[in-house]
Amino acid sequence: MTQIYDRVALIGLGLIASSMAHAMRKHGLAGEIVGTARSAETREIARQIGFCDRVVDSVEEAVKDADLVVLATPISAMAGIANQMKAHLMPGATVTDVGSVKRAVVDAIGPRLPDGVHFIPGHPLAGTEHSGPRSGFAELFEGRWCILLPDGTTDIAATERLRSLWEAMGSNVDLMEPDHHDLVLAVTSHAPHLIAYTMVGVADDLRRVTDSEVIKYSATGFRDFTRIAASDPTMWRDVFLSNKDATLEILGRFTEELFALQRAIRTGDGDHLHAYFTKTRAIRRGIIEAGQDTDAPDFGRVKAGR
Amino acid sequence: MTQIYDRVALIGLGLIASSMAHAMRKHGLAGEIVGTARSAETREIARQIGFCDRVVDSVEEAVKDADLVVLATPISAMAGIANQMKAHLMPGATVTDVGSVKRAVVDAIGPRLPDGVHFIPGHPLAGTEHSGPRSGFAELFEGRWCILLPDGTTDIAATERLRSLWEAMGSNVDLMEPDHHDLVLAVTSHAPHLIAYTMVGVADDLRRVTDSEVIKYSATGFRDFTRIAASDPTMWRDVFLSNKDATLEILGRFTEELFALQRAIRTGDGDHLHAYFTKTRAIRRGIIEAGQDTDAPDFGRVKAGR
Repeated sequence: MTQIYDRVALIGLGLIASSMAHAMRKHGLAGEIVGTARSAETREIARQIGFCDRVVDSVEEAVKDADLVVLATPISAMAGIANQMKAHLMPGATVTDVGSVKRAVVDAIGPRLPDGVHFIPGHPLAGTEHSGPRSGFAELFEGRWCILLPDGTTDIAATERLRSLWEAMGSNVDLMEPDHHDLVLAVTSHAPHLIAYTMVGVADDLRRVTDSEVIKYSATGFRDFTRIAASDPTMWRDVFLSNKDATLEILGRFTEELFALQRAIRTGDGDHLHAYFTKTRAIRRGIIEAGQDTDAPDFGRVKAGR
Repeated sequence: MTQIYDRVALIGLGLIASSMAHAMRKHGLAGEIVGTARSAETREIARQIGFCDRVVDSVEEAVKDADLVVLATPISAMAGIANQMKAHLMPGATVTDVGSVKRAVVDAIGPRLPDGVHFIPGHPLAGTEHSGPRSGFAELFEGRWCILLPDGTTDIAATERLRSLWEAMGSNVDLMEPDHHDLVLAVTSHAPHLIAYTMVGVADDLRRVTDSEVIKYSATGFRDFTRIAASDPTMWRDVFLSNKDATLEILGRFTEELFALQRAIRTGDGDHLHAYFTKTRAIRRGIIEAGQDTDAPDFGRVKAGR
């Protein structure tokens, strides 16, 4: 592949940033990769693994002469980072981010950046339940969507250049508007995560069923919830606080629907239940046809021996 | 392996029964496997695949001279089947089932069986989102738990024989009491399934987000819900109707907890959210240590190309 940026600065060195570094290395997309993170421990681990060409101790140093700056921190840290870096950005540089919520990021970063810097928010829809600099791998973005959110004033060449970076890392790129993004993600990701967290918490609290029973018998249903509920707590706290309105709207609809199904159970309305469960199968089929999952039973999951 | 039963009758030929047949064949556990199903189409498919030695057209014929009878139908059909077969069971035979709810099955079948027949309810905690006679495979039960529910009067030798069958098919066997089973499963399986069905239904109803958007951007969170929500509608209708009390109890706790988290989002209580999300990580670790899942990121799921 051909190099797309001369110097990429990664601010934050967790799962997404380290995966980007591995992917950019693998495909030769960046002349130099410079990284930094708030925690000295994270920087030290990143140095040991060596997925950056240089790991530096400050945001100011990291963004110097970078033609692409990627904010890959919890959303709550982004406004502060924008303040730190704004006087040090190279004219003509592109600033992007990988946060799961976009309206809050646009409002936090956009007004803080100087003229002549291209701000293009981004969101790669990829992740695992693991976090931190050790968890990254080059293939994370392959076959996954990455949403970019330029506005009407964004330089088209800068957007196309960032798109080509994500495509070279294996992603499919879509453009979207921030508020619509936040609603779509509230449905497909944020509300499901909160629900999974809740169910796992309920199981833990239930005194008549021991934790070891819950763990032993988790094979169906619950196990998938625990995977979701093992995701990074800081990241998810910020997601819910910064996508408050859309998440609460979806949770309101969810609760309403759940009450209707609970009533059907209570009154023994089997037809209602059967019709509902039949309808939900169709969405699953759509996802498999869209290539976002495998049709292999149980995801072709590795059989767990004892 | 040595043969454990001379003739096994499978009543119902879906995912579980066909997987049992494949597993018993693979390990040489049954002298003869006889199967039947209510639908002529299912019987015909089973004949074509050939996982039974004989596929017969009636329950009466299937159970004749069988020393093990396995009920593997939706729970709502079991009382009727018990009535059909009771005059045809061989003295000394064992009758078991594979239903996901146990109090209702005990009440439906137990009183209908003649003296001299050993009734040992069972529940293999294994499954995929696929159903029907084509979906079975011999390894389904490997490394999974199977719960058997003899009562104080059950013949110990009969229980040990059934246990040895499940162990030979690769399962770990536990004994449990029906009401406790139903509560444990309400937490680990039934409530999570209803919640997943609900969330998938909400996504489908939301007019401002198109189905194709939901499908495209399902990579995190929602995709796991759709897998769960693709399970067999008839089986799950019966589960909820026959485990009504425990399911409604758990859903009540779930709703209460969800309201508390919604309030934390609304009031911006990040500490509450962070503490809750940190707690749920521990359960996930326990499941991995118990060997019920793999620690590979994203389940080591096959990467979906486009």
